[in-house]
Amino acid sequence: MKKSLGPRTLAYPTPVWLVGTYDAEGRANIMTAAWAGICCSKPPCVTVSLRKATYSYGNIVARQAFTISIPSETHVKEADYVGIASGRDQDKFARAGFIPVDSDLVDAPYVSECPLVLECRLLHTLEIGLHTQFVGEIVDVKADAEVLNDKGFPDIEKVRPLIFGPEIRTYHGIGPYLGQAFAVGKDL
Amino acid sequence: MKKSLGPRTLAYPTPVWLVGTYDAEGRANIMTAAWAGICCSKPPCVTVSLRKATYSYGNIVARQAFTISIPSETHVKEADYVGIASGRDQDKFARAGFIPVDSDLVDAPYVSECPLVLECRLLHTLEIGLHTQFVGEIVDVKADAEVLNDKGFPDIEKVRPLIFGPEIRTYHGIGPYLGQAFAVGKDL
Repeated sequence: MKKSLGPRTLAYPTPVWLVGTYDAEGRANIMTAAWAGICCSKPPCVTVSLRKATYSYGNIVARQAFTISIPSETHVKEADYVGIASGRDQDKFARAGFIPVDSDLVDAPYVSECPLVLECRLLHTLEIGLHTQFVGEIVDVKADAEVLNDKGFPDIEKVRPLIFGPEIRTYHGIGPYLGQAFAVGKDL
Repeated sequence: MKKSLGPRTLAYPTPVWLVGTYDAEGRANIMTAAWAGICCSKPPCVTVSLRKATYSYGNIVARQAFTISIPSETHVKEADYVGIASGRDQDKFARAGFIPVDSDLVDAPYVSECPLVLECRLLHTLEIGLHTQFVGEIVDVKADAEVLNDKGFPDIEKVRPLIFGPEIRTYHGIGPYLGQAFAVGKDL
């Protein structure tokens, strides 16, 4: 018998991704998003939900583009800070010690220090309620050479992405390898 | 200088969630989804993207409801299996050794063995491409008493959710606690 906890945004894991945008003056901004995920394989798409009140919201609507920079465990303080402060009154890149890199594909900046980044053009906007959901087509994924495995893909144990637990508000790292997908369940 | 990996569904972490539905004959079905995430705080909503070819797709459209059951590390084989097999020709609940529980709130079953479950009514359907995105309003979250902390919320280290790495196709567990959100970044 399970205990009812009520209608809540309570599900594990959620990501800790940094959404990169330009404002009207061309200043680079980032904010943390956990209401996000991959949402389509072809075209490859990612979704991120933002409140209209955020500075990034207007930036995405105006520029029709955003990036996702995936921070590493070592960036936990910076990732938390850019989720607390607003780009309206602070240069969050500078204060976090992050260097903005201008995407050559979309009208948005990404975080140089993050090992894995996605460059996205806005494809759909869905009004849900407090949050507006943006669906971005992933036009390119870029990664630091140091995190790539021998097949040329990012090793998740080298990227060491952050994991967020809603309601309990905790950050965790990536844990032990448990098996290969589309494989370990075959002998069941 | 980052290396370009091309347009891909490559982002870490993604969840490993089990989508529960009933088919036209009222048989309980589950499938694994990693293209998923929370997408709105008010109303609390979760999104899951499925290919039209899946058995679960038609079930959600017909019943206008689904559940998300969050498996634990110990269910890695079962979670992988229900992502490989189809409910068209197999009773995946039975083969995985899972017991379906009829939600008292929505027209869908959840997995008794999973420590954390979300019951959702279909709110939006967005056609993106290969995947269709379903947005479900979370009408209740239910958890096993054993995983709750002293504040009544699920302890992520007791839930021990699975994490999926796209492209590299690996499952990982939850890693070490790294800090409190909306707190660790304040002193930056």
